[in-house]
Amino acid sequence: MEYRKFVYKFGGGNAEGNKSMKALLGGKGANLAEMSAIGLPIPPGFTISTEVCKYYNEHDRSWPNGLEEQVKESIYFLEGLMGLDFGDAENPLLVSVRSGAANSMPGMMDTVLDLGLNDKSVEGLAQKTGNPRFAYDCYRRFIDMFSDVVMGISHDHFEHVLQKLKDEKGVTDDTALGISDLKELVNRYKAVYRKATGHMFPQDPKEQLYFSINAVFGSWNSKRARTYRKINRITGLLGTAVNVQAMVYGNMGDDCATGVCFTRNPADGTDELFGEFLVNAQGEDVVAGIRTPRNINELKEIMPECYDELVEITHKLEEHYRDMQDIEFTIQQDHLFILQTRNGKRTGTAAIKIAVDMVNEGIISRNGAVQNLVEPRHLDQLLHPQLGKSAIQEQDILGQGLPASPGAAVGKVVFNADDAETWNAKGEDVIMVRIETSPEDVGGMAAAKGILTSRGGMTSHAAVVARGWGKPCVAGCQDIVINYDTQSFTNGEITVKAGDWISIDGARGIVINGQKPVEEPTLEKNYHTFMEWVDEVRDMYVRTNADTPKDAKLALNFGAQGIGLCRTEHMFFGDDRIAAIRRMIVAETQQERKRALANLIPYQRKDFIEIFELMKDLPVTIRLLDPPLHEFLPQESQEIRQLAKELGIPFKKLENKIRTLKEFNPMLGHRGCRLGITFPEITEMQTRAILEAAIHMKKKGEMVRPEIMIPLVGTSEEFIHQHEVIDHTAEQVFEEHDESVSYKVGTMIEIPRAAIVADRIAEEAEFFSFGTNDLTQMTYGYSRDDAGKFLEIYMKEGILRDDPFQILDQEGVGRLVQMATERGRAAKPDLKVGICGEHGGDPTSVRFCYDLGLNYVSCSPYRVPVARLAAAQARLMSDPVVRKEELVG
Amino acid sequence: MEYRKFVYKFGGGNAEGNKSMKALLGGKGANLAEMSAIGLPIPPGFTISTEVCKYYNEHDRSWPNGLEEQVKESIYFLEGLMGLDFGDAENPLLVSVRSGAANSMPGMMDTVLDLGLNDKSVEGLAQKTGNPRFAYDCYRRFIDMFSDVVMGISHDHFEHVLQKLKDEKGVTDDTALGISDLKELVNRYKAVYRKATGHMFPQDPKEQLYFSINAVFGSWNSKRARTYRKINRITGLLGTAVNVQAMVYGNMGDDCATGVCFTRNPADGTDELFGEFLVNAQGEDVVAGIRTPRNINELKEIMPECYDELVEITHKLEEHYRDMQDIEFTIQQDHLFILQTRNGKRTGTAAIKIAVDMVNEGIISRNGAVQNLVEPRHLDQLLHPQLGKSAIQEQDILGQGLPASPGAAVGKVVFNADDAETWNAKGEDVIMVRIETSPEDVGGMAAAKGILTSRGGMTSHAAVVARGWGKPCVAGCQDIVINYDTQSFTNGEITVKAGDWISIDGARGIVINGQKPVEEPTLEKNYHTFMEWVDEVRDMYVRTNADTPKDAKLALNFGAQGIGLCRTEHMFFGDDRIAAIRRMIVAETQQERKRALANLIPYQRKDFIEIFELMKDLPVTIRLLDPPLHEFLPQESQEIRQLAKELGIPFKKLENKIRTLKEFNPMLGHRGCRLGITFPEITEMQTRAILEAAIHMKKKGEMVRPEIMIPLVGTSEEFIHQHEVIDHTAEQVFEEHDESVSYKVGTMIEIPRAAIVADRIAEEAEFFSFGTNDLTQMTYGYSRDDAGKFLEIYMKEGILRDDPFQILDQEGVGRLVQMATERGRAAKPDLKVGICGEHGGDPTSVRFCYDLGLNYVSCSPYRVPVARLAAAQARLMSDPVVRKEELVG
Repeated sequence: MEYRKFVYKFGGGNAEGNKSMKALLGGKGANLAEMSAIGLPIPPGFTISTEVCKYYNEHDRSWPNGLEEQVKESIYFLEGLMGLDFGDAENPLLVSVRSGAANSMPGMMDTVLDLGLNDKSVEGLAQKTGNPRFAYDCYRRFIDMFSDVVMGISHDHFEHVLQKLKDEKGVTDDTALGISDLKELVNRYKAVYRKATGHMFPQDPKEQLYFSINAVFGSWNSKRARTYRKINRITGLLGTAVNVQAMVYGNMGDDCATGVCFTRNPADGTDELFGEFLVNAQGEDVVAGIRTPRNINELKEIMPECYDELVEITHKLEEHYRDMQDIEFTIQQDHLFILQTRNGKRTGTAAIKIAVDMVNEGIISRNGAVQNLVEPRHLDQLLHPQLGKSAIQEQDILGQGLPASPGAAVGKVVFNADDAETWNAKGEDVIMVRIETSPEDVGGMAAAKGILTSRGGMTSHAAVVARGWGKPCVAGCQDIVINYDTQSFTNGEITVKAGDWISIDGARGIVINGQKPVEEPTLEKNYHTFMEWVDEVRDMYVRTNADTPKDAKLALNFGAQGIGLCRTEHMFFGDDRIAAIRRMIVAETQQERKRALANLIPYQRKDFIEIFELMKDLPVTIRLLDPPLHEFLPQESQEIRQLAKELGIPFKKLENKIRTLKEFNPMLGHRGCRLGITFPEITEMQTRAILEAAIHMKKKGEMVRPEIMIPLVGTSEEFIHQHEVIDHTAEQVFEEHDESVSYKVGTMIEIPRAAIVADRIAEEAEFFSFGTNDLTQMTYGYSRDDAGKFLEIYMKEGILRDDPFQILDQEGVGRLVQMATERGRAAKPDLKVGICGEHGGDPTSVRFCYDLGLNYVSCSPYRVPVARLAAAQARLMSDPVVRKEELVG
Repeated sequence: MEYRKFVYKFGGGNAEGNKSMKALLGGKGANLAEMSAIGLPIPPGFTISTEVCKYYNEHDRSWPNGLEEQVKESIYFLEGLMGLDFGDAENPLLVSVRSGAANSMPGMMDTVLDLGLNDKSVEGLAQKTGNPRFAYDCYRRFIDMFSDVVMGISHDHFEHVLQKLKDEKGVTDDTALGISDLKELVNRYKAVYRKATGHMFPQDPKEQLYFSINAVFGSWNSKRARTYRKINRITGLLGTAVNVQAMVYGNMGDDCATGVCFTRNPADGTDELFGEFLVNAQGEDVVAGIRTPRNINELKEIMPECYDELVEITHKLEEHYRDMQDIEFTIQQDHLFILQTRNGKRTGTAAIKIAVDMVNEGIISRNGAVQNLVEPRHLDQLLHPQLGKSAIQEQDILGQGLPASPGAAVGKVVFNADDAETWNAKGEDVIMVRIETSPEDVGGMAAAKGILTSRGGMTSHAAVVARGWGKPCVAGCQDIVINYDTQSFTNGEITVKAGDWISIDGARGIVINGQKPVEEPTLEKNYHTFMEWVDEVRDMYVRTNADTPKDAKLALNFGAQGIGLCRTEHMFFGDDRIAAIRRMIVAETQQERKRALANLIPYQRKDFIEIFELMKDLPVTIRLLDPPLHEFLPQESQEIRQLAKELGIPFKKLENKIRTLKEFNPMLGHRGCRLGITFPEITEMQTRAILEAAIHMKKKGEMVRPEIMIPLVGTSEEFIHQHEVIDHTAEQVFEEHDESVSYKVGTMIEIPRAAIVADRIAEEAEFFSFGTNDLTQMTYGYSRDDAGKFLEIYMKEGILRDDPFQILDQEGVGRLVQMATERGRAAKPDLKVGICGEHGGDPTSVRFCYDLGLNYVSCSPYRVPVARLAAAQARLMSDPVVRKEELVG
């Protein structure tokens, strides 16, 4: 290898690298170089490039010519800047060594701190810090870390020796060991090292350093790292870089300090320095809470120069990173060092305010703010009521479940739908608590302020319905055991009875005992300003999934541009309606069935009129009846008996009917358009109700835009069949009313086969809407109701990175979505394509839909602002011109 | 349009067209031309080309210049050949008019017969036939047919008039009407025509002909025909042709006759003329059974010249079509006319004999015989026992169900598995009769001679298991009602009790009362000769699905070249084994589970040794445990109690365990590799048993070829996980035994997502095997157990052409198979790919697999010969060189 540059130095306000050099310097190295280059006082250091790693691993673990010289020269550079000497007994330069590739990955070498310590320099450190205990503690930790991380000697050996010493001394806490104990520990640790390696613990810092560098390079090919790269398809990397950086200490005396601060208030966004610090302390002391940190403002009085420098740096950082920063700093003997800076985490309120302020201050463009300063989850937080932070005390927490639907709710516990409705009618706030919910519970769920279940996942019935309504829900809370008989639940310690107050936080999945205060969301001017900017950028439509006028209205307020999914089955659960639909189901002749269905028309028509009146000329996609019929019938013997009486048919007969409707795999059974084909009169009834409602609106002067959606289509023949039934009914209705309206007919793409034959279906259909819930179920072969048993283990084992029911699986399901879109548009270039599954409100999935060129996404009302933002961000991300020109300054 | 040839004449031993001109003359026209061209005495006629149809429909229903002249000239040609005159009162030429496009399709115009009859020529016909009744009956039928088919006047009007006349005459049968009645009927029919059209019924035969020709052209664009072409993607056709052909009559006197004959005996294949005829009769008389037809040999004495001519023609036809022919002929006044010839239907025995004979006679090549003379279903017939034809008397038939598994079985009725096993042990032949079967019934099913169910489809549990074993099964016989309480079933008339004899024919789906004689199949020399020829051609492997040594042995005899699917779960249902697996399921710790599994190892190892001993160096693909665990546990309260006692755990606890294992959609639940991942110890145990069995064989000097197949993989991460468990276990086993064997690890592709990410899975896998049963379920979103409710309607409505569980859906599921094969091979070019779903034994699906380049198909033992033939035929079909050079002569 000819002479080349292997080592890149940074520090003293300069750097040989910058943030664009990730491939060569790794992510960590490139960032350190960047910070130094913009003049931040960071602890100096150097990065050995990834090219060296490649050379090392390809040349039998040897160094290229010239590397050693460059490393030595860099150490010399550090010594100069820090005024310290590597291995010096009085003024020792200590360094950290870390790995760092372009992608972070497990299996690579962990950090080694305080490298450079030996039997002599430990004394120097003791004197300089005036804290020999600290110095020897550092030394024994260094030996442990070096042995474990670099030499592969199990940490257990050292734990064992430590425990033995504590036993000898009769103490239980590490901190109870005195200086002499620590010195003894150092000796014993060195003995462990010697026994394991056959060598003395290296006293030469250079040797320590070289060993560590080699260990980093070697770790690139550890089994775990290789497996990780394979699974995550990380290819084309040369190897890892090695970062060597000077150690700094905030605990060398009263001219030292350490702290953390935000450049703005992360709770409400106010433009002020926000943070805390400790004098003569280490970084971990601030977090550990042993000493109470002081407000950052006090630093001004104690160390005015450092404070002013810090303030100046915060401005510089905000301008450079165009975002609010979260900074870690250390002051060592009146010198300020910035250890780390990163974009700061913040609340939804703060995110919006910071974004609007930074645009007004000229720090970032509008598009830049839309793109980078507000995350979709911030909006989520903003739109739902929250429990006050003070409300949640550890001892009040009854259990932790899944954060199924965000927002806080407080109410009295009820255990069934009837109680929920009755109590609600009396003006009581209730929380409905069920083991799991079913469609029969929806009345009670609607009446409740919030829902809590002890079983079921993020996409269980309770979770899906609650999210749809924006109603707080904690699902699958396994910490509690519900007993319907005694009308109570317990977490083993506390028993909560019907009528007791509880509070739930659906964003965090927490269940709290008692009645806690709730803060209502307020959408202020900043929110509206920001969302205007979002909509200026956005070029994909956002619709909502709404079955009721209430939902439709809510979604309109949130900026929905139409209804992408109006499920009609929920309309059948009302009191009079369920009777009619049940009569339809048990009918034995088409005649009877038609008669029963005729009773439903007035209800359905009224439902549609109410929705049309709200949506006016916005498109409304109405899905025809989808669920298997048994969902409308009771399963319990007593209820069946009751129903038999109501319907005037023998109990046995009804019970038999219910039994024949039972299915082994209802998910894959007689539902969707399969119902419409075997019972075309259902399709006829629904078409009639939709079109009569549209005609009613037309007569009132409103041109509405109904889109009739046929569910669960898997073959073009199914679509043609139902399309014909719809057109035929439309002809009849138009003739009867001597009036016509325009309507579209399309289908849900939710069966894998439909995606495959999308070109044929598109020849007949006017629109596609991806039902990614069912599509995910069938593409994976996962039943959403049953997958809980293994999905959790799958995520723990890394077999799945995300729950595919929450984040669209782009590699599998997404390719079907892509295939269907491409094939559909190939057959019909102006085919309207949208998505109405749960994923329509998930930001990464929205991005995916945008890149595929979908016309719209549709999601539950509370997700509409989230989807609007995600769509705007998707546009900014996918348009490199916009990205370059607009995001900068 | 410049002058062109529009009309193509045939007859008199010549023709202007031939069989290659289907696009221009339609299928029917091209065939008539061909028959005439090879010198057959067919009734002469002419075909108006499809170009004319196109012209007609594009030019406002007008004829091109010159068409009329060509039609007239052709009529003149017919008159000459027949010695008759079109429209003549004494010697009328009558013709038929038929549509006929390149593809046959519904919605096109039906036949018009006896065109040319009018008030005068009907008299001529009466005199010539000496049968005025016949003549007037022809005339009234012609008016009806012409009015209905050509003029669109509903046939109902004529039915109504006919009924009225019969009422007036006080008769119920048409045949009771006398000549004068028929004359009256002709008058009334003409009145109907006049009323509907405002015109007299056309007396000019030319006018009748032109109207009919136009009606054919018009029918090309009927809604039904257009829809059919759209659905079946028939494009690029110009239109339909029109065939006009002289009528001939076998009932003009004793010098006339009509008959049907086969060129060889269709029952056993003997080379002899086989058929029957009637003197002075019409074609339908032979079929109608009013007069008893005479043996074709008698024709030799009555009309020796015609007989000799017929024999000569049969030789000519066999040589021309290279197949046994089924011929319809009419002798009109000592002139022999061949009305139709087609390849004759035959039994399996006959098919094989004819194929071998024709090769020996030099009529066809071996490849030609393999390709065309034996159908896969012929082999099916040959391999199973049959009920003697005489066995099936109408009055004995108890019901008709689905032909779920071919073959005949006779035995005493039993209603549960225990009885089946007990009675069988006592030497009784039994038929197991169940409403439907479940895995718990397999012991009884194995003990029974045949299986009958009253519920379930062609792919129900009973059907699948029975086909796998080659055991006769009639499934879903809705004609019978089973009552377990009374241990009997009834079809409403007859009640059959346990212990009564019944016979079933699984090939026809018939259930017969009593003990009928069964004919055992005999595979004779011809069969072996033919199958040798098949294997000479074949270049795709055929394996078998076999779980037991018995099946494996059977399949080897049928020519299987390995096991493509050895399911291991069936191995768990034996007495001692089920106890161990149940203990494993209810175990609460990994420890307990491992202990329970350890008990299974000896059984599993023995199973594999037995199979390896049979298969020797042929590959054996073993699938790891697949079904959800609840399938191994009882569901009935009493059985649960019993089991709880056996396992020594509380009843409640066991019941609870069973309840938690219950799934909403077990098909999409916790099964397949999801079990192996959550309980890796199951995979470990099975791997150990397989490899220990292989080592055992190696030590005996046999190198076996185990292929371990991981089921239900949907992500590459799942495969990697299980692959690691297998390899890790293998290392342990090899170390313990100080011996190693080679093995492959691959996966079933049965989840849609697996097909999509096949490239990633193939990087890790050594083979793929398509599990098209589950793949079909998930791609369509059909639960095989539930789809019966709508699949039947779907097929009736034409929404599905075939049951996708029987014939691979090439458009949807097939495209996933193709995608997976292509992506898999792109990642790993030498990836071994096979299919082991039910479709592996279906001929059209085998062809599809062949065209995709699969290495093998695997099917149940009895389907192996079928698959061998289908694979050979697929090669011949897909190789145009082979096809041209080898199939001819």
